[in-house]
Amino acid sequence: MAEVFRARRERLRDRCVATGSAGALVSRPANVRYLAGGAPPGAVLLLGPGSDGGDVLFCPHAPGVCATDGSPDPGLRIASLPSSGGDPAVAAAELARTGGTDSLAVEEHHLTVARYRAVGAAAPRLRVDDLGLAVEQLRIVKDEEEIACLRIAAEITDQALGELLESILVGRTERHLALELERRLIDHGADGPAFPTSVATGPNSGRRGHRPTDRRVGEGDFLTVCVGADYRGYRCEIGRTFVIGTSPAEWQIELYDLVFAAQRAARETLLPGAAYRDVDRAARQILHSAGHGESLAPLTGHGVGLEIDEDPQLAPAAMGKLDACVPVTVEPGVHLPGRGGVRIDDTLVVRQEADGGPELLTITTKELLAL
Amino acid sequence: MAEVFRARRERLRDRCVATGSAGALVSRPANVRYLAGGAPPGAVLLLGPGSDGGDVLFCPHAPGVCATDGSPDPGLRIASLPSSGGDPAVAAAELARTGGTDSLAVEEHHLTVARYRAVGAAAPRLRVDDLGLAVEQLRIVKDEEEIACLRIAAEITDQALGELLESILVGRTERHLALELERRLIDHGADGPAFPTSVATGPNSGRRGHRPTDRRVGEGDFLTVCVGADYRGYRCEIGRTFVIGTSPAEWQIELYDLVFAAQRAARETLLPGAAYRDVDRAARQILHSAGHGESLAPLTGHGVGLEIDEDPQLAPAAMGKLDACVPVTVEPGVHLPGRGGVRIDDTLVVRQEADGGPELLTITTKELLAL
Repeated sequence: MAEVFRARRERLRDRCVATGSAGALVSRPANVRYLAGGAPPGAVLLLGPGSDGGDVLFCPHAPGVCATDGSPDPGLRIASLPSSGGDPAVAAAELARTGGTDSLAVEEHHLTVARYRAVGAAAPRLRVDDLGLAVEQLRIVKDEEEIACLRIAAEITDQALGELLESILVGRTERHLALELERRLIDHGADGPAFPTSVATGPNSGRRGHRPTDRRVGEGDFLTVCVGADYRGYRCEIGRTFVIGTSPAEWQIELYDLVFAAQRAARETLLPGAAYRDVDRAARQILHSAGHGESLAPLTGHGVGLEIDEDPQLAPAAMGKLDACVPVTVEPGVHLPGRGGVRIDDTLVVRQEADGGPELLTITTKELLAL
Repeated sequence: MAEVFRARRERLRDRCVATGSAGALVSRPANVRYLAGGAPPGAVLLLGPGSDGGDVLFCPHAPGVCATDGSPDPGLRIASLPSSGGDPAVAAAELARTGGTDSLAVEEHHLTVARYRAVGAAAPRLRVDDLGLAVEQLRIVKDEEEIACLRIAAEITDQALGELLESILVGRTERHLALELERRLIDHGADGPAFPTSVATGPNSGRRGHRPTDRRVGEGDFLTVCVGADYRGYRCEIGRTFVIGTSPAEWQIELYDLVFAAQRAARETLLPGAAYRDVDRAARQILHSAGHGESLAPLTGHGVGLEIDEDPQLAPAAMGKLDACVPVTVEPGVHLPGRGGVRIDDTLVVRQEADGGPELLTITTKELLAL
């Protein structure tokens, strides 16, 4: 595995050389983890010029706080700061300067102004450039190890959701169902939930990012669940809408069929070379034609990986095209204020048509189940 | 309640006037919530010059994402951004400029370099100053409404912990005990856990910030639990160490008595006017004299409120003195590698001696219980 992380760092080093920076200071936690294999909270990675020997992971040292997200690549030099504190970014900049580096690219979209100024003050003769989204761009296409983690995350999520569906739901609150799902994720081996679990019933159903309330599940309700596991840092997402009771109402069947058609249309576009905006449009135009244009979410899906919301964004104004081995969500939904709604959300991996087309990771049925 | 938030904004406005800034752009979420009463994620508050009428809460608008942390002060003007996105901070800076404001203080310790540059580009003739920790400083001393929320958070936490202690613990994993505690917090009315619940057994016990593992509680183990509820945004913390089985070993009793003595010594110093470092020293010197100086955490306690780790820091190099109505934790601990350890952690409010001295919010017993 150490080989994987070194190779990632080499690709970033090549990018730095190409843009004229001698080194890079990576501070965004998911980026640090991607390049170092694991790191405690607050760690920063200094990518030195020339060779891998100059790379150092700076950790804020606090005795008793040893928890790491995964284990750092053993080939990486680790520098611990004294317990009295200090900013790892500042220490890294100082080392870069004393090591003869004359320029350093930082993540301006993550580093605060205050830390940026401290880096400049600690290493005044260092030219500080913007690394931009270089690491995020490397992270878009996943290797098979990463996809294997996502696949396990999805299996865990399907299991947890499947068990919940076998239990009695009527009368229980959104909050309790969300907590039970999270407990089941852990039971099945997740490191934790990938994001705060959303359970929405009745008029709340179909709302994106709904936070569970004390509302109880009632007969005739739509019930929307959006949940995902974090497995070794990799996060997936599944969303399903069910109906509670013996048989769905006419409007519920119609709305469900509509959202299902939109979700399927978007899923079918997931091939290498497809424009991000075309995936979005496939779902959006179906919902729009049915009169739901105004209330739609700004995106139809997004990348997943070490963060639950990564590039690419599958949205009307997004620029770019899908590559093979990019995992994304497809999650259209419609919410009718006061009545409720439907969301259907899968995590899939873009694959060549010759390889069977998009690989569905979240395999829980998308039939409209009456529970 | 709206009165409270307006008064807080007036205090900040006075501070801005005194330092020569015509307006302020507040972006740190807990600071926005403190001044606005509630805000969706990503919202920023523009504090205009002159009068309260110029204050605007800018919210990133995304249909379907309506969840807010509390309700904003109804007296505050709300501006929603279009669903296509855009940075609320940039919109706020533009409005400040067009409103005739010539300078704006921003939170350089929170705003990223990229957002800071975007603010500058959107309003190039605006002088951008540093607001520094002005809002954090206002937040240190709590009003009685805030303390009432903390008191309820502590009651909920004591209840959840008390119920756990009545259940069978041997054979259960750290992860499961942590999940059960979090479920019980919600049962008793918490909005959620104040921070990730820590449950540590055997050799893990006594470690600060330990993340629960699959280790099972065994006979003779120390068991350290650190948990807290979030009630209406206010977060408290309690830590207790228990021994599993019929009777503790000699070394366990000795270590427990030592940490208890250190914790009590620090608690007894909590009076208005006490230097932060003296609170820390009261606990630290007892543990140091007993030979545990090397492994101690860098602080003995910290403020709590809308965030779980606020100012003041009760640490050897901290500058400043306690005021009345400042809630803090007192949480010394010792961890012996390979064997385990003890942590004891309370949340208390600093009160005048005439008012009865420090008010203990977390009242679960600190006797060494054998469970």
